Amino acid sequence: MEQDQIPSQKPGHPPVQSALLETRTAENSAAHLLPKLQSMKESKPGLRLLDVGAGPGTISVGFAKLLPDGHVTGIDVNPRVLPRARAVAEIAGVTNIEFQEGSVHKLPFADETFDVTYCHQVLTHVGNPWDALREMLRVTKRGGVVAAREGDYETECVWPDVPELSKTHSLIAALMRAGGGTSTAGRQLLSWALRAGIERSRITVSSSTWLYATPSDRRIWAQGMCDPLRKGSLRDKALQSGLATEDNFEDMAKAWEAWAEIEDATMAMMHGEILVQK
Amino acid sequence: MEQDQIPSQKPGHPPVQSALLETRTAENSAAHLLPKLQSMKESKPGLRLLDVGAGPGTISVGFAKLLPDGHVTGIDVNPRVLPRARAVAEIAGVTNIEFQEGSVHKLPFADETFDVTYCHQVLTHVGNPWDALREMLRVTKRGGVVAAREGDYETECVWPDVPELSKTHSLIAALMRAGGGTSTAGRQLLSWALRAGIERSRITVSSSTWLYATPSDRRIWAQGMCDPLRKGSLRDKALQSGLATEDNFEDMAKAWEAWAEIEDATMAMMHGEILVQK
Repeated sequence: MEQDQIPSQKPGHPPVQSALLETRTAENSAAHLLPKLQSMKESKPGLRLLDVGAGPGTISVGFAKLLPDGHVTGIDVNPRVLPRARAVAEIAGVTNIEFQEGSVHKLPFADETFDVTYCHQVLTHVGNPWDALREMLRVTKRGGVVAAREGDYETECVWPDVPELSKTHSLIAALMRAGGGTSTAGRQLLSWALRAGIERSRITVSSSTWLYATPSDRRIWAQGMCDPLRKGSLRDKALQSGLATEDNFEDMAKAWEAWAEIEDATMAMMHGEILVQK
Repeated sequence: MEQDQIPSQKPGHPPVQSALLETRTAENSAAHLLPKLQSMKESKPGLRLLDVGAGPGTISVGFAKLLPDGHVTGIDVNPRVLPRARAVAEIAGVTNIEFQEGSVHKLPFADETFDVTYCHQVLTHVGNPWDALREMLRVTKRGGVVAAREGDYETECVWPDVPELSKTHSLIAALMRAGGGTSTAGRQLLSWALRAGIERSRITVSSSTWLYATPSDRRIWAQGMCDPLRKGSLRDKALQSGLATEDNFEDMAKAWEAWAEIEDATMAMMHGEILVQK
């Protein structure tokens, strides 16, 4: 991963909410789309791109840099992330971008608005991902593309094999399922695209990984685990549903902090990817 | 994967023993080494490379093509695979290569013989992989590199989730463990390299995937599962150890054949990689 690319914190800007989410870049989280984006840009520099579930906007900003004559719209269902996304764009000096509230279930755009519609770690959280894909296709122009990349959380490999870390995995996977999502999205993307009615010949399937194996990368991953264990909606949901207790959370968080300092520790996860030609 | 690159069968040549193994190329199975190989070649065109556990030789032959002024030695602990490896080289028109019998536990070469020493899917099968890495380091020149890529079989994602396919996975994982190996090699490579006494600063860790998602690729993967279920040492060992019965094997093989024909079926697996600078 490329932790050096995390946007800096500046006075007057909304604070970093998740350093882990801000390590996501167009290069490390949308590599399967970039060659296609490059070839589309050559024939049409003013591409319009939609990033669904943009979060803190680091991937969207990466797209905007790659499309200096184009325009990027980032949407997120959670309006509280939007100020930080706008700050990330400002820090990067990117102006061909806007962020607004919006859900993948009902995208606030007319049919055939965008040349490229993209999402990352969105379909894994929704109940009918084929409907979400259909909605992404709806707002995409004919001749445009829809691209998605989703983690396959069940492939998460954490070494060494510490029980408290496995418990975190089980807890998060259970919460994903309880929320109507799945922890095996990566392997199901092709299946979902076919169920959305897309012809097989229009779908390119690929896969790639995230890896955290250096001290600085491990600390970012560990922090990304500790933060939601210590406060926030994941913790609240787990408590409400009886999946964990207060003590469990602190034990898990401490285990992640210890893991980050182990010299041979690594975390890797496989992601599934699709690229759909409309 | 790149099934088009399987060497063809020619009259008078030893037959293909495993089409699945022959889909392995330097490009799809040693991508983490290739940029380093390229830069080393630029300053020293006559590089000597050792491929440990070469099997049918397709990866070794790929290296030999990339090193037209260099020389590749492929070794395998099983001498019965060597005629096919030599045929693969002949079919490719590659002459700067030789294959011989040899074990990673005691490599039949003097200290500091090779510029590059590589292995793929070898350490996952041995009991003390750190000793094997030390042996690979021994035969590597100072300033040279040791590279390894090992599957992490527990990340195998097969979709759809058919019980007979999961049984095959459990059987193969159990046999790997029974044979002294592990089904989680990919995530342990850094740990093993450190245990071999290599300084962390000399180790680059990476990860990549194999994906089978098209009909032709799926048939190759399924055939690669069916063949050892229907005859050979895997089947014999499973019967001897009581891990499976005759009926089990045929049920599993038929499930793989059916799986290959399902339109939304996919198989992906994560691999761990290390590149060590000696």
